[in-house]
Amino acid sequence: MANLCFGIDIGGTSVKLGLFTITGELLDNWEIPTRKEDKGSFILQDVAASLEKKIIEKALNKEDIIGIGIGVPGPVKEDGTVLQCVNLGWGIINVAKEMKTLTGFDTRVGNDANVAALGEMWQGGGKGYNDLIMVTLGTGVGGGVILGGKIVTGSNGAAGEIGHITVSYDETESCNCTKHGCLEQFASATGIVKETRRLLEKSDEASSLRNVGVLSAKAIFDAAKEGDSLALQSVEQLGRYLGIALSHVAAVVDPEAFVIGGGVSKAGEMLTEVIKKHYEQNVMLALKGKEFKLATLGNDAGIYGSAKLILEK
Amino acid sequence: MANLCFGIDIGGTSVKLGLFTITGELLDNWEIPTRKEDKGSFILQDVAASLEKKIIEKALNKEDIIGIGIGVPGPVKEDGTVLQCVNLGWGIINVAKEMKTLTGFDTRVGNDANVAALGEMWQGGGKGYNDLIMVTLGTGVGGGVILGGKIVTGSNGAAGEIGHITVSYDETESCNCTKHGCLEQFASATGIVKETRRLLEKSDEASSLRNVGVLSAKAIFDAAKEGDSLALQSVEQLGRYLGIALSHVAAVVDPEAFVIGGGVSKAGEMLTEVIKKHYEQNVMLALKGKEFKLATLGNDAGIYGSAKLILEK
Repeated sequence: MANLCFGIDIGGTSVKLGLFTITGELLDNWEIPTRKEDKGSFILQDVAASLEKKIIEKALNKEDIIGIGIGVPGPVKEDGTVLQCVNLGWGIINVAKEMKTLTGFDTRVGNDANVAALGEMWQGGGKGYNDLIMVTLGTGVGGGVILGGKIVTGSNGAAGEIGHITVSYDETESCNCTKHGCLEQFASATGIVKETRRLLEKSDEASSLRNVGVLSAKAIFDAAKEGDSLALQSVEQLGRYLGIALSHVAAVVDPEAFVIGGGVSKAGEMLTEVIKKHYEQNVMLALKGKEFKLATLGNDAGIYGSAKLILEK
Repeated sequence: MANLCFGIDIGGTSVKLGLFTITGELLDNWEIPTRKEDKGSFILQDVAASLEKKIIEKALNKEDIIGIGIGVPGPVKEDGTVLQCVNLGWGIINVAKEMKTLTGFDTRVGNDANVAALGEMWQGGGKGYNDLIMVTLGTGVGGGVILGGKIVTGSNGAAGEIGHITVSYDETESCNCTKHGCLEQFASATGIVKETRRLLEKSDEASSLRNVGVLSAKAIFDAAKEGDSLALQSVEQLGRYLGIALSHVAAVVDPEAFVIGGGVSKAGEMLTEVIKKHYEQNVMLALKGKEFKLATLGNDAGIYGSAKLILEK
């Protein structure tokens, strides 16, 4: 009986691979480097070779393997066509078709942020929910929308671009997307640091953050937990921008829960509490009382979600 | 062969009923009053009696009728349970089950704003699209989200509550929902009039609107079309608030198109153009170039969408 599958998360530096049971147990996981030479043309071959090696190493029966799920850093169409992955050097390429040709296994492909959301729903912080929003606070701010247990892709693969919801109309600096005032400019790891620097410059108030060597999101939350007034102001502002953005999201799809992940989410419940406070202030009655959960799978969310993707086919 | 269905739209004053072919042709439509006495307990009986009368009048074969779709003014759960319809006097009631008992026909039930969106997708301004957002600008601002040809209901039936996206953080007056600065406060028919009055009061500028007996959304658009500077400012502000709110919506679900309906949409392309302009200024590249369409079914959108609902079962 086919009861295994592979979940794969292709990143700009490394490819993460996992062998899963259909009930969500991770039996093995490993990484290979992402070879970006020659427009990334070796990447899928390397993945196929690594899977073949693992099958031999573990003496797996190919008939037990349902297929392969893959997450990629770019927009993906329903049929597995990737339109562009700048980080991998890829142009237009049907990843599902290529992997099927290379391995013989059925393959499904999704955008990495969406796939991570699916992973957290399956075995992570969103377990037990069918309608959820994941927000990843890392170098950028990513998002994934899951409705009825399925990823919402959007007509151009741009659903869940929560990081580019405008939350400030006074911001003069440009976002990476060229707009001004995107959530990502305030709630990414770098955004939090930049905003805290602004607060420190504007104020004469004493703050332990003035003595920190390298200001980081972690340092800011640590200081806030110690009661540092400026750090607390910064955390409050972060919560306000996130709460406002998620209030907009809720008015569109009315999810059961929000799952907060990415490096910044290591701040823990102080983060979810402050987001929830501002969310509640900005939604109508019918949208109040949502759950705010921390992601639990960390960097493995992508392989979990990719595996789930092929199980859902 | 079953090739007919009924689409029904229950409103606070009247119930609209339509007899449709499965290909979307409206064969007959009529209305009955909404009897709200005794907590609305007669409404479904009246509907059932009216359908029975129509079946006899038209000598329809009951086996040709696939079922009944119903739109109601309140949140509806997947199984057809209505949680509350203040306008009808209803508390918790399973409308699908009751209609099935009363008529013998399979019945599906949806929220009226969502059902109108489905109707516009099927035979109206959104024909040809599978992923669309409908915004209804009337007494209030309603919304409906359609993805993959299906209504997105949300975990509490509150998906598509676009009118309660916060678009202004300076507003001191309360919205009907008790929040401050909701889209509805600026983009409903009454909101547009209120905002225009504010502009007129703040300015000494001459305006034909100062001589209008009863200021209305229509009068404001008419004046704007004549080049009245204050009316143009008001239309611009309306477009900005709508464009911003729809930019948030797009970042969540990336639809193909927006359909604008309700009484205010009689303003025509001047309205869609000004919304589109501000939308484009507030979205990232991947979300640009969406279609902005006018609704075409008017008050019949509800019966069309209800009919589609039962065809989709």
